[in-house]
Amino acid sequence: MNDKIILFEKKIREAIGAVLHQEEPDTLFAPVRYILSIGGKRVRPLLTLLAADMFGADPEIALEPALAVEIFHNFSLLHDDLMDHADLRRGMPTVHCKWNVNSAILSGDAMMIESYRHVTKVPSHLLPQVLDVFSNMAMDICKGQQYDMDFESRLDVTEADYLEMIRLKTAVLLGSALKIGAIVAKASPHDAELLYDYGIHIGLAFQLKDDLLDVYGDPLTFGKKIGGDILANKKTFLLIKALSKADEVQRAALERWITAADYDPEEKINFVKNIYDQLNLKIIAENLIEKYYLASLDLLSSVGVADNRKKDLCWLSENLMYREK
Amino acid sequence: MNDKIILFEKKIREAIGAVLHQEEPDTLFAPVRYILSIGGKRVRPLLTLLAADMFGADPEIALEPALAVEIFHNFSLLHDDLMDHADLRRGMPTVHCKWNVNSAILSGDAMMIESYRHVTKVPSHLLPQVLDVFSNMAMDICKGQQYDMDFESRLDVTEADYLEMIRLKTAVLLGSALKIGAIVAKASPHDAELLYDYGIHIGLAFQLKDDLLDVYGDPLTFGKKIGGDILANKKTFLLIKALSKADEVQRAALERWITAADYDPEEKINFVKNIYDQLNLKIIAENLIEKYYLASLDLLSSVGVADNRKKDLCWLSENLMYREK
Repeated sequence: MNDKIILFEKKIREAIGAVLHQEEPDTLFAPVRYILSIGGKRVRPLLTLLAADMFGADPEIALEPALAVEIFHNFSLLHDDLMDHADLRRGMPTVHCKWNVNSAILSGDAMMIESYRHVTKVPSHLLPQVLDVFSNMAMDICKGQQYDMDFESRLDVTEADYLEMIRLKTAVLLGSALKIGAIVAKASPHDAELLYDYGIHIGLAFQLKDDLLDVYGDPLTFGKKIGGDILANKKTFLLIKALSKADEVQRAALERWITAADYDPEEKINFVKNIYDQLNLKIIAENLIEKYYLASLDLLSSVGVADNRKKDLCWLSENLMYREK
Repeated sequence: MNDKIILFEKKIREAIGAVLHQEEPDTLFAPVRYILSIGGKRVRPLLTLLAADMFGADPEIALEPALAVEIFHNFSLLHDDLMDHADLRRGMPTVHCKWNVNSAILSGDAMMIESYRHVTKVPSHLLPQVLDVFSNMAMDICKGQQYDMDFESRLDVTEADYLEMIRLKTAVLLGSALKIGAIVAKASPHDAELLYDYGIHIGLAFQLKDDLLDVYGDPLTFGKKIGGDILANKKTFLLIKALSKADEVQRAALERWITAADYDPEEKINFVKNIYDQLNLKIIAENLIEKYYLASLDLLSSVGVADNRKKDLCWLSENLMYREK
């Protein structure tokens, strides 16, 4: 384990624990505290602190915008789970299940406002710039979620459409988390942009890895049920690639399974996975992940600070790439 | 009609028409353009421009934050209508009816982000201060909506609870619209605060007038069906006051009507209205409206600019008070 990251994670955990602590009314803020407490890996605020640290700034200066990024991320999970009718998040009941739909809507809204409150605490001369990055990120994430929903009813989604969707929905958040850390650490605009692009590439690889783990993950370490995306007919990289590479027979069979109203779940997962295997999609996806990962390392190596200042970020990215859950 | 207000309304209308014009994806932004286009009286952005103008500033400088206020207001209507299952807004289908629930959630989220983008355009040295007012306003509105929903299942809501709820849900928006106009016009903090309080009082009177019109409005000019709040068992000032002033017989009858699952709508409206009449609630509400209105005029008269600079704001407030719809 990495000592600096352990320290930064502790700072983040403590700061998250204080967000909207004891604010009233409880009906509005208890769901916010709940989703923030069931937490996850805190990768995004870590990226903000690591980026600031990389340029020699005291990471304390990046803590408020890091919190803003994490609160916004959790807000978007809250509303996405509601829109996707998801029952569980990180193994726990989602807010609309534990409370109700209206709580999920309104407590989510309150979270977005709270995220902006934390952005507002950056040094005032940096505020316009940080706010621009933050709002563009926020809007991109909404666009990404909209495309994701729009894709559900389409069978003609291309690989390029898909990559643009995950860029907006997932990658921009990592890129922006890093860029904001760079800005508050007074990095040059060129370096801040390099870090943004680095985050985009890591984010694309990260989401592709997610798609892959859903089908090819180890059930013992993955934490979720294998094949969830297949059962939900989610337009993942694998399904889109399969639909485009399939011959007529395979495509007809895939479409039959996608539109089937009544089926045995195990049978559907095995059938679709079998087609993915026939089309060699595991290797294709792994190659694409590797491509993005290598490109990200190139971008990071161009950032104008000494190599030893980049090692914590490298360590974190490598862990994200080679995770099994 | 007031020439300055006509001019300001035109500026606002044009600026609103350009918001997210032709932005993609259409599935995300068409609902935003729709709700902004069916528009209403644009009172809140007018207040921002009038406040700036009152302190001698070019109202152009207040246009971006005025837009932010109007976009946020429409965002909150969009999500409130979804939470309240309302079918119509200003006589037109609500977004979740015309599109669907997920559109209403996500397009609403995009509107909130867009509102912050417009706040960000104020001169940078004023940005931290304006953002604080804006985010506090936004959070207060969420709290107000939460209290309003919480009140639905309670029969013990006091007049003080109710006034605090409408302060948060309605009045803070008017107060903040004015205060932001004052800040960008470089008014003194004392004057900005006086205008905020003025807006709070106008807002309270405005909402009480709304409650009153629902029952005692002229069906020909009101624009909505009379008695809507009564049928929805909405905890308005009138119902709360009735429950507290009623004798045992009246209270039991009121509670019977509130909990009745099956009834004739006209009969319910007439019955409840009859109790309001017995308890003299029309006069009581009118007196309270007058009290807030007079207090607001006192606050405005204390603002440190010449009286003739206050006449447009006076004109607008008077129109809000004596409106019949």
